[in-house]
Amino acid sequence: MRGLMMETPLLVSSIIRHATLNHGDTEIVSRDASGATHRYTYADAYRRSSQLANALTRAGVREGDTIATMAWNDYRHFEAYYGISGIGAVCHTINPRLFHEQIAYIINHAEDAYVLFDPGFIEMIERHASGCPIVKGWIAMCERNEMPESSLKNLICYEDFIGGEPEHYDWPVLDENSACGLCYTSGTTGDPKGVLYSHRSTVLHAMTSAMPDAMNLSARDTVMPVSSMFHVMAWGLPYSATMVGAKLVLPGPNLDPESLCQLFVEEAVTITAGVPTIWLGLVAHLQKTGARLGSLKRILIGGAACPKSLIAALEDDYGVEVVHAWGMTETSPIGTLNTMKASHAGLTAAERHEIQAKQGRGVFGVEMKIVDDAGVELARDGVAFGDLLVRGPWICSAYHRLGHVETLRDGWLPTGDVATIDADGYMQITDRSKDVIKSGGEWISSIALENLAVGHPAIREAAVIGIPHPKWSERPLLIVVVNQGESVSRDELLGFFDGKVTKWWKPDDVVFVDELPHTATGKLLKAKLRKDYELFGSRA
Amino acid sequence: MRGLMMETPLLVSSIIRHATLNHGDTEIVSRDASGATHRYTYADAYRRSSQLANALTRAGVREGDTIATMAWNDYRHFEAYYGISGIGAVCHTINPRLFHEQIAYIINHAEDAYVLFDPGFIEMIERHASGCPIVKGWIAMCERNEMPESSLKNLICYEDFIGGEPEHYDWPVLDENSACGLCYTSGTTGDPKGVLYSHRSTVLHAMTSAMPDAMNLSARDTVMPVSSMFHVMAWGLPYSATMVGAKLVLPGPNLDPESLCQLFVEEAVTITAGVPTIWLGLVAHLQKTGARLGSLKRILIGGAACPKSLIAALEDDYGVEVVHAWGMTETSPIGTLNTMKASHAGLTAAERHEIQAKQGRGVFGVEMKIVDDAGVELARDGVAFGDLLVRGPWICSAYHRLGHVETLRDGWLPTGDVATIDADGYMQITDRSKDVIKSGGEWISSIALENLAVGHPAIREAAVIGIPHPKWSERPLLIVVVNQGESVSRDELLGFFDGKVTKWWKPDDVVFVDELPHTATGKLLKAKLRKDYELFGSRA
Repeated sequence: MRGLMMETPLLVSSIIRHATLNHGDTEIVSRDASGATHRYTYADAYRRSSQLANALTRAGVREGDTIATMAWNDYRHFEAYYGISGIGAVCHTINPRLFHEQIAYIINHAEDAYVLFDPGFIEMIERHASGCPIVKGWIAMCERNEMPESSLKNLICYEDFIGGEPEHYDWPVLDENSACGLCYTSGTTGDPKGVLYSHRSTVLHAMTSAMPDAMNLSARDTVMPVSSMFHVMAWGLPYSATMVGAKLVLPGPNLDPESLCQLFVEEAVTITAGVPTIWLGLVAHLQKTGARLGSLKRILIGGAACPKSLIAALEDDYGVEVVHAWGMTETSPIGTLNTMKASHAGLTAAERHEIQAKQGRGVFGVEMKIVDDAGVELARDGVAFGDLLVRGPWICSAYHRLGHVETLRDGWLPTGDVATIDADGYMQITDRSKDVIKSGGEWISSIALENLAVGHPAIREAAVIGIPHPKWSERPLLIVVVNQGESVSRDELLGFFDGKVTKWWKPDDVVFVDELPHTATGKLLKAKLRKDYELFGSRA
Repeated sequence: MRGLMMETPLLVSSIIRHATLNHGDTEIVSRDASGATHRYTYADAYRRSSQLANALTRAGVREGDTIATMAWNDYRHFEAYYGISGIGAVCHTINPRLFHEQIAYIINHAEDAYVLFDPGFIEMIERHASGCPIVKGWIAMCERNEMPESSLKNLICYEDFIGGEPEHYDWPVLDENSACGLCYTSGTTGDPKGVLYSHRSTVLHAMTSAMPDAMNLSARDTVMPVSSMFHVMAWGLPYSATMVGAKLVLPGPNLDPESLCQLFVEEAVTITAGVPTIWLGLVAHLQKTGARLGSLKRILIGGAACPKSLIAALEDDYGVEVVHAWGMTETSPIGTLNTMKASHAGLTAAERHEIQAKQGRGVFGVEMKIVDDAGVELARDGVAFGDLLVRGPWICSAYHRLGHVETLRDGWLPTGDVATIDADGYMQITDRSKDVIKSGGEWISSIALENLAVGHPAIREAAVIGIPHPKWSERPLLIVVVNQGESVSRDELLGFFDGKVTKWWKPDDVVFVDELPHTATGKLLKAKLRKDYELFGSRA
């Protein structure tokens, strides 16, 4: 028996429409590369998004067409989010930090009809234009007098493009499962894969994100996403902040600590979001300058594990609540957020930070489980660890135009992470699936051993990898860099693990090296280490 | 082009499953008629809901079957919400305060297979049982030793019914549009009409309700719904509080101020919800006894307009935030909630209460408009008033088994209320549609005139009705009760309106009466007045 409720679809256009009707005079503040500030309101943004929708329609863009953006967080990018998706087209945000050859690849793979870009990216656009024959127009997001000098064919000025268009658009009543956004993963191996968000997934993700134990967003907040609108939709904040009618501050390209601090104070920002690197830099700046954070009350930190020391500095020294988050491009991205429960009320700051260093509880709508090699679910006891699988209405079921690639396992998305989940639902990443060491049918966490090794006073950096073993399948090998002027023996270092881990976790051997290989962003290149030391066991 | 997100349906079973996995040890506290307290956890409730699901399945209940409850707010009723809906059956909550003949009518109309009831309602059940031949069993929600003495056939003990059943149930993956709940309107005229909630509408309603500018529900809260689980699902709190993992306090049948105060303090309740009458009684009790409200920080007040004086007393004298709400059985029920915006930060308490006396802003998902007689949308300026229409995913599109009745107007639900909406989206009810006076093609608010009339020192109570007029269609007639020992002339009273309303709003005449007719709940019976004074104009 069907319920007898209205079949109102969940649509992106309903988010900005709601904001306009209820928060029409609330501000959206943007800062550009020069440091100049642009201010307007949700009502203005709604009118200009409607103009963009009319311009795109006039240019022949139809439901299901893909329109790309390559832009910083600013008001024109915001208009693109709503103007493009509102008419049923797909807003494909391009990450300008992708490898160059990948940018042309994804423009062609997505079949972008138009590319809207910040004039600052003109050189990058010029380099790729000839390799992207499908693109009908390159739209520079600026005024006519700000247009970059360029010999690019089909170069269009955004303000000319939308200027003179009607300020009203009858947003179509779309199927809520139709696509509204597209973001390619920025994996370091293989071609990027496109994750195709739907109107339904985007609206549900925004609703859950706004909830008190998630990002806790209100019309009384001022929200500044430092997370990029060109990657995973700035964690959905352009949707969730708009849904609640919060004042929105879009910081543009200048994300140095001084620029951020200035915006926090001048615009009375209450909530912000970004990766740990940004906040490590911010804290160093605060410590050096004695600057303060104005009205800031909460920072959402995700994209990489947030160090406990960063949580402690922000909360204890600057009185800003830290919400540790975990997600992926494939999860829209919010999977978990770390907020406290009533039972934590009596904890000391240090005890609280211990919990906060975990990635957090699955928000409502995201189901998580950890499984062993055979796919058997493991205990939610905070100790057992296994491959982390997730499912829910804003989690990717397949990649764009890669329908033949097996994405799910029994209806669940394997995240590529290895994690524990405790009885309260808090998840903690313990490893990447490809880095975990599988020894005698059991798993050993490479990260846990590395963290122990760097606890030895002589060790500067450590990597633990699994190397092939005829009996145990894999055994852990410890590779270390010793602090300058210090020394430690193989046996002393191995003995350092005694009593700290179960016996069979103890690495079999140690390799002393001068340095460890890293990616450009500072992550250990364990794949290279595994290749280099593949034969270590047989040689030993 | 479809998005590539998982097609995970929004289901009621996912709410309690999420609570169990993340808040398994959080308490649900119930108080029974004797004042005894029962405590258990979400994990316990989940196990017992699963037992109920197994028992119902064993008893032959299938997807789409309807199972009724007639019970106060307590843990067994909570189990019924999840056990019944979880298996795809429909939880039909019966309001024991309906007129007696209506109870048998709705049991038969809904075709309830089983009726779960509090033993305290045994007499009411015995009276109706013979008139309800479809019901296969009457299940008393108690232990065997608490079973009422009764000659009722097919009387079943709830604890026997679920005892011994497995504590696990594989909840089916239902179509999210399938029905999960049924509640009949308690209109005073005509047969009650059934509103059939879906899993989708229930989950979306709970998500929106929990948001910071709505009910603002967190795992750190203790939520006590005084609003009845037998009427409009206690405003959805058994779903929304469970979704966030809040501690839940279910007060049972004793809703007197003393019992409520005791629970507030003993259980450290932070959020509660109910109709104005409850809170008027509470404030009188507090004023008399000097009692305080413990940790209480927020009261949701709806079901009838909340007087400004009540808002002021609760906020200014007791430090409890009031959230004025509006909704109907047909709107699940949350339509509007009145929370402040950033721009209100500098207001005085009195200025804030002025806004809070309005019914509030439409929550995300609820669209509202006001229209004139011709269906033309009126200005959102806080002045123009018209028929209030609403639409959204948790708003009724038709009544159960009344498919032939026209429920919607161009896809919108007419609420039967007349209202203004201001530029910030705040809606204020100014009249019932059937009470508004239509004069010369324009509308006159009967409530506005009544409020003015009782401002005259000699007037105790006033009613304004429209009476037929040959030229203007209707003209307002003022009917008043004068305070004992005071007097006022017709002309003096009519003159009292001069300068306070536009000239043509001024009533044409006054009738002095000893008392005005009321419903059992104290509402003016304007239909009777219109009938009584129908010929007043022609006689005059």
